[in-house]
Amino acid sequence: MPLHDPAHAFVPYPDVPVPHAGHGPLCGLSFGVKDLFDVAGYPTGGGNPLMLAMSGVKIRTAPTVQRLLDAGARFVGKTVTDELAFSMNGNNAHFGAPINGAAPDSISGGSSSGSASAVSSRLCDFALGTDTGGSVRAPASHCGLYGIRPTHGRISLEGALDLSPSLDTCGFFARDAATFERVAEVLMAPDATPLPEAVRLLRPEDVWALLDAEVNETLSTAVQRVESVLGPARPVHAALDGFDAMYWHFRHVQGHEAWGTHGAFITRFAPPLGPGVAERFAWSSQVSDAQASAGQAFRERFRRHLGELLGTDGVLVMPTMPDIAPLRSDSEASLEDYRNRSIRLLCLAGLSGFPQLSMPLAQRHGAPLGLSLLGPAGSDRSLVRLARRIAAA
Amino acid sequence: MPLHDPAHAFVPYPDVPVPHAGHGPLCGLSFGVKDLFDVAGYPTGGGNPLMLAMSGVKIRTAPTVQRLLDAGARFVGKTVTDELAFSMNGNNAHFGAPINGAAPDSISGGSSSGSASAVSSRLCDFALGTDTGGSVRAPASHCGLYGIRPTHGRISLEGALDLSPSLDTCGFFARDAATFERVAEVLMAPDATPLPEAVRLLRPEDVWALLDAEVNETLSTAVQRVESVLGPARPVHAALDGFDAMYWHFRHVQGHEAWGTHGAFITRFAPPLGPGVAERFAWSSQVSDAQASAGQAFRERFRRHLGELLGTDGVLVMPTMPDIAPLRSDSEASLEDYRNRSIRLLCLAGLSGFPQLSMPLAQRHGAPLGLSLLGPAGSDRSLVRLARRIAAA
Repeated sequence: MPLHDPAHAFVPYPDVPVPHAGHGPLCGLSFGVKDLFDVAGYPTGGGNPLMLAMSGVKIRTAPTVQRLLDAGARFVGKTVTDELAFSMNGNNAHFGAPINGAAPDSISGGSSSGSASAVSSRLCDFALGTDTGGSVRAPASHCGLYGIRPTHGRISLEGALDLSPSLDTCGFFARDAATFERVAEVLMAPDATPLPEAVRLLRPEDVWALLDAEVNETLSTAVQRVESVLGPARPVHAALDGFDAMYWHFRHVQGHEAWGTHGAFITRFAPPLGPGVAERFAWSSQVSDAQASAGQAFRERFRRHLGELLGTDGVLVMPTMPDIAPLRSDSEASLEDYRNRSIRLLCLAGLSGFPQLSMPLAQRHGAPLGLSLLGPAGSDRSLVRLARRIAAA
Repeated sequence: MPLHDPAHAFVPYPDVPVPHAGHGPLCGLSFGVKDLFDVAGYPTGGGNPLMLAMSGVKIRTAPTVQRLLDAGARFVGKTVTDELAFSMNGNNAHFGAPINGAAPDSISGGSSSGSASAVSSRLCDFALGTDTGGSVRAPASHCGLYGIRPTHGRISLEGALDLSPSLDTCGFFARDAATFERVAEVLMAPDATPLPEAVRLLRPEDVWALLDAEVNETLSTAVQRVESVLGPARPVHAALDGFDAMYWHFRHVQGHEAWGTHGAFITRFAPPLGPGVAERFAWSSQVSDAQASAGQAFRERFRRHLGELLGTDGVLVMPTMPDIAPLRSDSEASLEDYRNRSIRLLCLAGLSGFPQLSMPLAQRHGAPLGLSLLGPAGSDRSLVRLARRIAAA
């Protein structure tokens, strides 16, 4: 970890040198890695003390991390993750709450909290995270960063701790669109079917209707900026069966898999789990196979629905989160309510597996607020390119 | 750690073989080591996730642990400690609450909670702990074990995390007096000035007056058993300036040193600390140099006073703890109250630096209650021998 870490973004592991290439497209850039990914010489704590205790020192580096090292980027440390990545609050009961570098009194958001904190606090140039239900997009919006949840499976999660494998993705953060694109070009091959130069910009009115009027208003200037580059957005309807149904289907799929991943660990070692995380795992243990199956079936229907809506040239422009980050002093109950509202926005990419990129294009009360582009499966690199064009506008 | 750890007594580190001698006085015995001591191949977590993260894998084994290995004892794992050893509740917010093998619904007591849990749950034959303010004696009494706080400095704490160095001691637990003596003979050379065959048994009436009548009554049979071996106890007065003064002097010395030990770590890394522990460190940071000096001056006076009272042949017979272990379901406030009552009993050995051995000679409502012998400085091995004679009676 960096010697100077006022943001408490990094897990204070003993520094073990991690070699990187002397040249390459990411030469000169430093990066942090969410403590779910193995890095040789370090343990992988996953934000839980007993998981850390069981980890031991890893002898292999996750391929995605290795790819960054091979491209010349310099590893500076492992970043704090929300406990077992099963939270969006950015407050780990055992490892602390990394500071939001763009709004220090507000939560960073999670679960890739330390990664967003490190980048927003300028402790490194970019950072690796994961996004199962919003864990890159939420902190990107809160901390004023570019952040992407790629198409499911697009960036390898080999050598990383799972949460809900059919939803887990590997994403990343940067402060500016140019750096963001440099990283994207290393981590993702060019799109097999790139978006055309002239995309169909779509505005999912049902999603926008979930926002408070003031937040909607705040984001309108950012939407206009996007439209100035991509042309006027056409109104569409994105949800299927309503947001309540989508919310529950998402949570059933996520919870059922999360318990499959960590249930044995929790049952055997009885790890103390922080507020919210304990309740979510307890809830997850109760999700029935039938509920999970129904969720998976819905997911297939929704993926087809959204795929048809987007075709090969459609891009949704939508809010990343319901609002700017809640305050660090907010109650657990109020954070839970914010989380539940957030999932309604975040589950579109989660359920479809399609890529979503959050851009730091708005502010409210001096805190950042992200605006997202959501494209068809495999359009990741094209979205990154659009974000760069919009940033330049 | 043992594959089967239903007591959650051990930290689940990856098993790394720790070689031990093939013969020796402890051959055939297995032991656990409180996770404050370095054992080569393992990290030293100290019951705090960030301390664990910073630890890295140790390459040296603490000399006291090595002495046990050289005597043929088999290391089975590192045991859970209360956070940074600054608690007596046996409930670590990050690593769990090891089960009291003698009273599963009650707390094990701490901070050597995992060690007492492992031995009382028969997961190993003996275990190493530390005692600053009661961290061996409290769990020994709660879990029905023999446990000693040796003369300060008698057993090396090299290679172990400090709490309050001028109070910290290395102690151990066993289920029976014979095993206890085998371990004592390995860890401690014979007393330079052994207690004589006929000791002066002393009953500190002011200490006994701190107990509720029912607890006093419960322990009376155990006292009679001690008297049947050592002769009738003579009433004495042990305290100096009253128990409230002793309590505060002890806490000022302990707190001032504890902040000296961990203040920089806490300030820099802002580790989330469990209930009680956080408050105690915050309080410790406020202890003034003047308060600490006054505590140290009192300690010298008390040491002389108790030294004169005991001479070379005096042994106090006294309660180890105010009562049987509180229930696991008891509130933090009620545990804090119990802790404060306990310190009044435990600070006699703490302040004097004299050895105190707790014997599992009583029960109340089916839960164990310890009776202690407290002897002059350096009488450790003699006390262990007395305990064996009493056990045989």
